[in-house]
Amino acid sequence: MSELTLYLAPGTCAMAVRIALVEAGAPHQIKQLDLAAGEQRSPEYLAINPKGRVPALVTEHGVLTETPALLLYVAQCFPAAKLAPLEDFFLLARMQEINLFLAATLHISHAHGRRGSRWADDEHAIAAMKAKMPQNMRDGFAEIENHYLVGPWILGEQFSLADIYLFVVASWLKSDGVAIDEFPKVAAHSQRMLARSAVQQALAI
Amino acid sequence: MSELTLYLAPGTCAMAVRIALVEAGAPHQIKQLDLAAGEQRSPEYLAINPKGRVPALVTEHGVLTETPALLLYVAQCFPAAKLAPLEDFFLLARMQEINLFLAATLHISHAHGRRGSRWADDEHAIAAMKAKMPQNMRDGFAEIENHYLVGPWILGEQFSLADIYLFVVASWLKSDGVAIDEFPKVAAHSQRMLARSAVQQALAI
Ligand SMILES: N[C@@H](CCC(=O)N[C@@H](CS)C(=O)NCC(=O)O)C(=O)O
Ligand SMILES: N[C@@H](CCC(=O)N[C@@H](CS)C(=O)NCC(=O)O)C(=O)O
Repeated sequence: MSELTLYLAPGTCAMAVRIALVEAGAPHQIKQLDLAAGEQRSPEYLAINPKGRVPALVTEHGVLTETPALLLYVAQCFPAAKLAPLEDFFLLARMQEINLFLAATLHISHAHGRRGSRWADDEHAIAAMKAKMPQNMRDGFAEIENHYLVGPWILGEQFSLADIYLFVVASWLKSDGVAIDEFPKVAAHSQRMLARSAVQQALAI
Repeated sequence: MSELTLYLAPGTCAMAVRIALVEAGAPHQIKQLDLAAGEQRSPEYLAINPKGRVPALVTEHGVLTETPALLLYVAQCFPAAKLAPLEDFFLLARMQEINLFLAATLHISHAHGRRGSRWADDEHAIAAMKAKMPQNMRDGFAEIENHYLVGPWILGEQFSLADIYLFVVASWLKSDGVAIDEFPKVAAHSQRMLARSAVQQALAI
């Protein structure tokens, strides 16, 4: 497999793909975008990802986007790293269920705190979304804490992509005004993730 | 594989899973919830899906949720139906990318038109989200029309889960105040879907 190129920005959901690539031992290079400067909307980047978001992964076959799709792609291309229960369809579906909940509920809740202008034009409405965001993050993390996180990893003994993605979304809690300690299992899980050398290496960009 | 039970409501994203089950020839029963009556928040249903949403799929191993996760599960359990390019990791990732875009961008845009109270508490903000929704649906469908839909099916010659899911999300355009004819390739795709006998059978509940 020829080298992959990942477009990312520190602190974003794209970091989950970066961690997965390092965990997989996948040859790759990274290209950082400055989101505050609007580089995701430059003509050069829109030619790579017309949606103007990170992550985007350039492969020998073409460009792929959407975090959970990229995560599964990395796991399938590098099966020796065992980043997903590829042989167990039920467990794989559970992992995908969690990744989908992170992408379509928790990431969306988070985005209402900083990018409310995606969904309404006036300032008052944007402020109202921002005000409700912490409670939505709490509700979503309560779901993770009470129903999904088996321990020590989210699926139980088997480490997977859902651990990586959860770790990144949980890292947003502080700036969202929610103390991670409200969710003791999630907090311990994040510590476990931080102890992994691949995670440390991936974050050191 | 023992019989599956799908919880759904007509017109919702859960219909994509219903269509996939019929396309796959999967033995299953359906249970309809009346969302307007709030059945998704009854104690009985919350015991099945604590998130209080459809779809939920009861399998012999446990309950699964989240539309794209359920779709892939059906394709993997019934590979003879060829509902996903399971052997081609890149094409599978493209299919997942589209399903994720439908779940995390288009479905979310749509939800701002009717369930704005998820993201803000005051009436004014909810009205502002509703007002912006049609434009967000247009922007998302422009992306599908211009970048994703190869034709005749979304991935090209190969029919897949992304066709099923796109068809269901496109069926919301009319009530969202957007004419499907603004997107000629999407409109023709929906007609192609309606001509499939599995789709007709799945919709006739
Ligand atoms: N559904 C996409 C969402 C991608 C996304 O929203 N990325 C954010 C960073 S976490 C971004 O690029 N934001 C820049 C912007 O909105 O301008 C995924 O899961 O990859
Ligand atoms: N991320 C979930 C979303 C499920 C969802 O929002 N379902 C809607 C119907 S399309 C629902 O059950 N709404 C009822 C409610 O919000 O009370 C998925 O993709 O399955």
